[in-house]
Amino acid sequence: MVRGPEPAPVSPERFAALWCSLAPIGRAGSDGGYLRYTWSPADLAAREWFVEEALDRDLTVETDRNGNLTAWWGDPAAGDAVLTGSHLDSVPHGGGYDGALGVVSGLLAVDALRSDAGGVAPPRAIGVAVFVEEEGARFGVPCLGTRLLTGAVEPQTALALRDADGVSFAEAMAAAELDPTGVGPDPAALARLGAFVELHIEQGRALVDLAAPVGVAQGIWPHGRWRLEITGEANHAGTTRLVDRRDPMVTCAHLVLGANQQARERGAQATVGRLAVTPNATNAVPAGVTAWLDARAADEPALRALVDAVAAQTLEQAGRDGTGVEFTEESLSPAVVFDPGLRERLRELLDAPVLATAAGHDAGVLAAHVPTAMLFVRNPTGVSHSPAEHASDVDCALGVEALARTLRDLAWR
Amino acid sequence: MVRGPEPAPVSPERFAALWCSLAPIGRAGSDGGYLRYTWSPADLAAREWFVEEALDRDLTVETDRNGNLTAWWGDPAAGDAVLTGSHLDSVPHGGGYDGALGVVSGLLAVDALRSDAGGVAPPRAIGVAVFVEEEGARFGVPCLGTRLLTGAVEPQTALALRDADGVSFAEAMAAAELDPTGVGPDPAALARLGAFVELHIEQGRALVDLAAPVGVAQGIWPHGRWRLEITGEANHAGTTRLVDRRDPMVTCAHLVLGANQQARERGAQATVGRLAVTPNATNAVPAGVTAWLDARAADEPALRALVDAVAAQTLEQAGRDGTGVEFTEESLSPAVVFDPGLRERLRELLDAPVLATAAGHDAGVLAAHVPTAMLFVRNPTGVSHSPAEHASDVDCALGVEALARTLRDLAWR
Repeated sequence: MVRGPEPAPVSPERFAALWCSLAPIGRAGSDGGYLRYTWSPADLAAREWFVEEALDRDLTVETDRNGNLTAWWGDPAAGDAVLTGSHLDSVPHGGGYDGALGVVSGLLAVDALRSDAGGVAPPRAIGVAVFVEEEGARFGVPCLGTRLLTGAVEPQTALALRDADGVSFAEAMAAAELDPTGVGPDPAALARLGAFVELHIEQGRALVDLAAPVGVAQGIWPHGRWRLEITGEANHAGTTRLVDRRDPMVTCAHLVLGANQQARERGAQATVGRLAVTPNATNAVPAGVTAWLDARAADEPALRALVDAVAAQTLEQAGRDGTGVEFTEESLSPAVVFDPGLRERLRELLDAPVLATAAGHDAGVLAAHVPTAMLFVRNPTGVSHSPAEHASDVDCALGVEALARTLRDLAWR
Repeated sequence: MVRGPEPAPVSPERFAALWCSLAPIGRAGSDGGYLRYTWSPADLAAREWFVEEALDRDLTVETDRNGNLTAWWGDPAAGDAVLTGSHLDSVPHGGGYDGALGVVSGLLAVDALRSDAGGVAPPRAIGVAVFVEEEGARFGVPCLGTRLLTGAVEPQTALALRDADGVSFAEAMAAAELDPTGVGPDPAALARLGAFVELHIEQGRALVDLAAPVGVAQGIWPHGRWRLEITGEANHAGTTRLVDRRDPMVTCAHLVLGANQQARERGAQATVGRLAVTPNATNAVPAGVTAWLDARAADEPALRALVDAVAAQTLEQAGRDGTGVEFTEESLSPAVVFDPGLRERLRELLDAPVLATAAGHDAGVLAAHVPTAMLFVRNPTGVSHSPAEHASDVDCALGVEALARTLRDLAWR
């Protein structure tokens, strides 16, 4: 049984050297957080960094019809290819590790395998992918690149999505010199894949409690995003009596507290992290408040019950406040249970604990089409989607080693 | 006793003609609301409109060191001059009448008096003023033009105020080709004035209930603006357990509801109409929320007690939420009781009812230095600071006639 090259050990310094070549791209001077919105100059610079690193390694770079990039070692057309990678876009002022750690680790894992391979490509090609708009921070729908690739979102729906400035996905893609007319599912590209393994920084503290640098994912909670357009009546803050107001900010405040309470009672997650207030003036009762609800729960009936309860409570409050509420589902990601065989194989290979997560990932989208697994790297504070997000160079190097052993196991098996 | 020219009747059509020449300037296509921020292109175009209308009437236009404009009929240096006017800036997506009605009515009142005056200027000059940044919508401090004129705000403080894009008042004023180095109090300009009368659309429905087209102001409730910087910890909305969060949005929701409840219980006004959320992402617990509190009450001890109660409640809640709150007073306008003699004189002259208001005005700032009065014009819905703000052409014409009779009474007395 051919087991392939023994991956070379990866030093924290080796990790840090590649990491530091990417880290400055799209980093905000104000707080050190990242502003890498899809197709923005910072995102394009990060993609360019990836392409150059891939070409330096003699990898073959493929840009698919949806703008997803893959750097291949070996020929994926031979089938049963092994894909890793993640994304380079960020939430506003997000952390540097979310997404980028999976891309950097993929390149370094290939390095670790190649150093012992004597120039011979693996029997199954290994690819490192960079997926488009994983965070949904610009166009509102997370994992848009893999949703398009797998057909989970309609091309016309995706192309018409608009950012906060009114620029459509199609316009932004064209401005990035990619052809938006070709977006859509690519079953042939998916059919080449034998496995997908995404490495990601943990977004919680389970590995800290377990004293383990690396873990294997069990699955992903179902989760979604809902937009609530709360409409009232703009009026003068000084002269309009409180009883005469139709104040959408009051309804929104009840939404924030109601969602929090409902999620606590159910052991689920609910967050209102984004608002748009119109006209947003100190001395005016708002005309409207748009609020976005992020909700997650252990299974789909529990998630539906949570969101229904929040919606009912908000509608009832709107009746009391004289406001109106329009409730729109922006995205819904069903529960994901990663391939049990692959998960068990990695757990044994890496002697790593198995964790559940409530965060969405491209792995969750691809899991419906390809045997998929995820590796998590320890996050000392658990903080994510924040400039304070961090993992040690030592743990990141251990993550690369775990990924290299995983890729060897899958590509040479 | 010289009583001056009999003002010509003012037809609704005459009012509408001048009104319609100003109305398109700075009007948003989306909702018909106004975006006339101080020193913006729309504001400068409105000021240019005023200067042209004044010159067409052979009035002498004066720009004071703070950028306030006055069009004079007669020579104010003779002393005891009679000033009217208001402002042309708007809140975001505000109504067309707030401010602009007082400026247009001032010009039309001068027309009504001049038509019978035979080219002879009044013994006391009549001026129509346009004051700078009355709404505080761009730089945060309302009535900034009259506060600078009267010394109620320090020049260095005003020059350093910044708009939402970080542009300072000094920079914006210089970009409008006005010299910011000269701003500050002008006691000599104030000493020339014998009276100030501001006409304004009513921002409530008292005149509707009284079936009167025009009213006279009693005074202005004390009012102010406070900024609350609520800080928490940015984190992932999916993976951070609710009990581990330090979520400033939750504290902010309690602030909104607490302020509303405290004001209701006290028969006062409290509004949170403006928020800034950081990073404002759907899938991130916010790092911080800045909220602005607008509060007003019948007297200063009542206002102070209201704001203290809201602050104490918010700090206590922040303790529970693990968040921090910094509380800053941005502006405080003391109670204003308009000159009783002038108020009685106008009440008798116009046979008009007397009303209190909770809205701030330049008249409130000038009242501490010049005998000051205000006239209100009926607002059928009471709505203000909204595109739906409205007064009928018939009532506006009656407002112009009342203002013309007032100016005659004061300038020829």
